[in-house]
Amino acid sequence: MNDPIQQLIKTLNHLPGIGARSARRIALHLITSKNKATINQLTNALDNVEKNITICNVCGNVDTINPCKICQNEKRDSNVICIISDVMDLWAIERSSNYKGKYHILGGILSAIDGIGPEDISINSLVRRVKHDNISEVIMALSATVDGQSTAHYINDKLAELPDVKITRLAHGMPIGGELDYMDDGTIITAFKARSDI
Amino acid sequence: MNDPIQQLIKTLNHLPGIGARSARRIALHLITSKNKATINQLTNALDNVEKNITICNVCGNVDTINPCKICQNEKRDSNVICIISDVMDLWAIERSSNYKGKYHILGGILSAIDGIGPEDISINSLVRRVKHDNISEVIMALSATVDGQSTAHYINDKLAELPDVKITRLAHGMPIGGELDYMDDGTIITAFKARSDI
Repeated sequence: MNDPIQQLIKTLNHLPGIGARSARRIALHLITSKNKATINQLTNALDNVEKNITICNVCGNVDTINPCKICQNEKRDSNVICIISDVMDLWAIERSSNYKGKYHILGGILSAIDGIGPEDISINSLVRRVKHDNISEVIMALSATVDGQSTAHYINDKLAELPDVKITRLAHGMPIGGELDYMDDGTIITAFKARSDI
Repeated sequence: MNDPIQQLIKTLNHLPGIGARSARRIALHLITSKNKATINQLTNALDNVEKNITICNVCGNVDTINPCKICQNEKRDSNVICIISDVMDLWAIERSSNYKGKYHILGGILSAIDGIGPEDISINSLVRRVKHDNISEVIMALSATVDGQSTAHYINDKLAELPDVKITRLAHGMPIGGELDYMDDGTIITAFKARSDI
């Protein structure tokens, strides 16, 4: 192995979820593709993203325009904000094509271990939005982990002072299609407690 | 999601071993990295490989020079050729830093299902090398699968006509550190048959 190849493998290896073996496999695939077409395709896609994508000043989404298409879309309910940790969560919710409000991306969650405090994520801008934008409901869509829930709790405290804002969170329970046998204890206990009439 | 991002995700998704979710995660990582430094790093690494890497005319390895560093290395035994399926195998053997001969990369193995015949892989150039380059030993390092072994068999037949060439294959048996409990029947049977005195 020699320098340019090593360098490419090292760069690929630093991407999330790509281990040493995958990095080698991808590098080789790129190098040996006919006329290096795959390399050019990837380089073009990267250039295009590098030149055209910005981060939305309002919600933190990534898009070609700023504010982003979701923030500019007048058909969406601008009185409802869904609070999420990052853009992956926004994409997941958009794929389910059910939610029609706006978003607020925190850019992370509070974490004592990773040293992420309230100033490191977009909480202040959220409070400002809720204060000035006539928001009627804030939906907490943070993960059901200790850090996710303490972040939701912290934001809840911050927003509780503001009048007329309903704060909700996503339901906890069995995922659709989930088998009891594979569920963890916490999920089963929560699903029992939150059971409803049929 | 909008066009340049979608395009990048699609391109990443076509790389080997990267599924839809990994592609989204990597794209987001590239987009949101500080000052897009990660994008530039990756673009540079790709450019560098695209401009500088060629395929060795002798053995089929990828390198900055042609013939490659291994073929040009006079300290390596040029009378021994190790036959492998692709460059990943060469890298694996080089990592073990034990083998000091040359290589011949077939660029695939014979496969009736995938329609890969003797003309599609570098068998003719191998026969030419063995004929003209004073080769004393050819080591078959192909996978212990049906296709790998029938390729080895085919090459063996081709080379058998040439005088004074020893043809060997890698030993089959238990991998070092392998637990019996996890081995497939074929490996256990082979390991028993090829048992040796201690």
